[in-house]
Amino acid sequence: MKKLTVLALSISFSAAAMAAPRNEPIQPIEPAPVTDQAKVELGKQLFFDPRLSKSGFISCNSCHNLSMGGSDNLPTSIGHNWQEGPINSPTVLNSSLNLAQFWDGRAGDLQEQAGGPIENPMEMGFTHDLAVGVIASIPQYVESIKSVYKVDKVSINEITDAIAEFEKTLVTPNARFDKWLKGDDKAITAYELEGYELFKSVGCTACHNGVNIGGNSFQKMGLYEEYVTNNPAEGVAGLSGEDADRFKFKVPTLRNVELTYPYFHDGAYWKLEEAVDVMARLQLGRKLEKDEIGKITAFLKTLTGEQPSFQLPMLPPSNNNTPIPVPFAKK
Amino acid sequence: MKKLTVLALSISFSAAAMAAPRNEPIQPIEPAPVTDQAKVELGKQLFFDPRLSKSGFISCNSCHNLSMGGSDNLPTSIGHNWQEGPINSPTVLNSSLNLAQFWDGRAGDLQEQAGGPIENPMEMGFTHDLAVGVIASIPQYVESIKSVYKVDKVSINEITDAIAEFEKTLVTPNARFDKWLKGDDKAITAYELEGYELFKSVGCTACHNGVNIGGNSFQKMGLYEEYVTNNPAEGVAGLSGEDADRFKFKVPTLRNVELTYPYFHDGAYWKLEEAVDVMARLQLGRKLEKDEIGKITAFLKTLTGEQPSFQLPMLPPSNNNTPIPVPFAKK
Repeated sequence: MKKLTVLALSISFSAAAMAAPRNEPIQPIEPAPVTDQAKVELGKQLFFDPRLSKSGFISCNSCHNLSMGGSDNLPTSIGHNWQEGPINSPTVLNSSLNLAQFWDGRAGDLQEQAGGPIENPMEMGFTHDLAVGVIASIPQYVESIKSVYKVDKVSINEITDAIAEFEKTLVTPNARFDKWLKGDDKAITAYELEGYELFKSVGCTACHNGVNIGGNSFQKMGLYEEYVTNNPAEGVAGLSGEDADRFKFKVPTLRNVELTYPYFHDGAYWKLEEAVDVMARLQLGRKLEKDEIGKITAFLKTLTGEQPSFQLPMLPPSNNNTPIPVPFAKK
Repeated sequence: MKKLTVLALSISFSAAAMAAPRNEPIQPIEPAPVTDQAKVELGKQLFFDPRLSKSGFISCNSCHNLSMGGSDNLPTSIGHNWQEGPINSPTVLNSSLNLAQFWDGRAGDLQEQAGGPIENPMEMGFTHDLAVGVIASIPQYVESIKSVYKVDKVSINEITDAIAEFEKTLVTPNARFDKWLKGDDKAITAYELEGYELFKSVGCTACHNGVNIGGNSFQKMGLYEEYVTNNPAEGVAGLSGEDADRFKFKVPTLRNVELTYPYFHDGAYWKLEEAVDVMARLQLGRKLEKDEIGKITAFLKTLTGEQPSFQLPMLPPSNNNTPIPVPFAKK
């Protein structure tokens, strides 16, 4: 026993000697500890289950596709009846690290967020009651929920809590930049490092900092120049009614930004280089040179982490008691 | 070496002694041998990639959802712009065992089938050329295709072939009924066995036989009674123009039928009991008693096999050269 401890200490000591963590405005991300595997598995099933939508066709994964960086790679999402969504679907990856959810922060946490799209007529087009009715009709779900939550009756709370618990596992550690942050000099190239130095020196880290490289403040989109868009979203002002909050949005994470195109709340920019250029002009009052944009973009691509890796979940089948989805208006 | 051979022989001998295969009109399914893992992995990515659709939202998996028995569990599918599809989406599970693809058999094999939905304006709404343009813009795909197919240039042939090769792996062995077929008396209950005996004696096995318990012939829907439906599909007659082929459809597989509701080419019946009742009346001229229907339904639920199990694939990201999806009509 003593021997093992000594060995463990000497390993961690030599790792620390090899790679001293750096003191930077960005911190590395760590894998999420899973404390309740059964809850996570339940949440994973629900995340992939299109029966939480009116049509039986749209699941959480439809717009937060875990094969595609936790986003749908569309300017705004496709909702029930092919409605055009009002705002770009933010990545679900590392979303537990954000100070609030949605672009305007109107949900305090992931559980509250998960309930939103289900009952949004523009998104999944369902109601919480109807979603609960579907899940409560399926014995395998009822059994899991009873076992995990020690409740007699299924409610929307267990459904959204399980989804949130699954989402908390969707972190993406070990990006090359994280390895560099932990002291591995070779994890990024000299060119990428120049990009990071620029990223700091021009002021990007004023908002894009911390573990999630964003996600921890609300900022006005368009400080030095107005952001020109047809998108009607007003940001936090939509909640507060305060003029000062117009176009104030949650700063998005830059982790996995290579995967989460198109960019900004209206999804108007597909190229990362363009997004960097627009941000520097509008938020920092600075026109970057082409080679500066190239370097910062190269740095941003070092933020792609290990994507969540798991077996495609199998969904318990509906049965004769399960309400039938309504994809099309009745004729 | 000799010892090992003897041991292997004695194991297979004792297994055979324990479980003699039965001589039945239905044969057990075996796992699909994978001969080219790289091709299957490529096909899996493409199967899950919504960039093969005009909208960037619909993938093969949207309507052949591998979390839900390889089907979408809707009467007919939701296509581009939320169009209502003309016919029920058949399961992709075990589809390699069918004599042809689509309800009317118009595709000879899975590769030909895979090309259909991509360019169907009612489904993925794209063209083969545009799909090839997307895939050919993504270096990781190009590299995989070059490595697997030894070609210089990506064409629709490699894309659909890889999808088909992945689909060939989607077999579902070891259903309880397969275990019974292989000699395990305890794999199904006495009640389920009565169901199977009825299934044979009333004549279901005339069409639902072989390894896929269907999928190996075309038959007229409505032999004794007309099938009443609003669905305009005419079956094989749509291809042949022959009046004799009206309402002739490929007999669907009954494997995993518990998961592939709703039933028939129009997806009009959600309850397996109702489907059994309709089939007996229309195809066999027989009104089954309620307890007969119960037994046959119980037997049918023994046909649920092991579902394909694999890691959710990660898709290589688009880049500045990748054509942008067009989910909504341009304004």
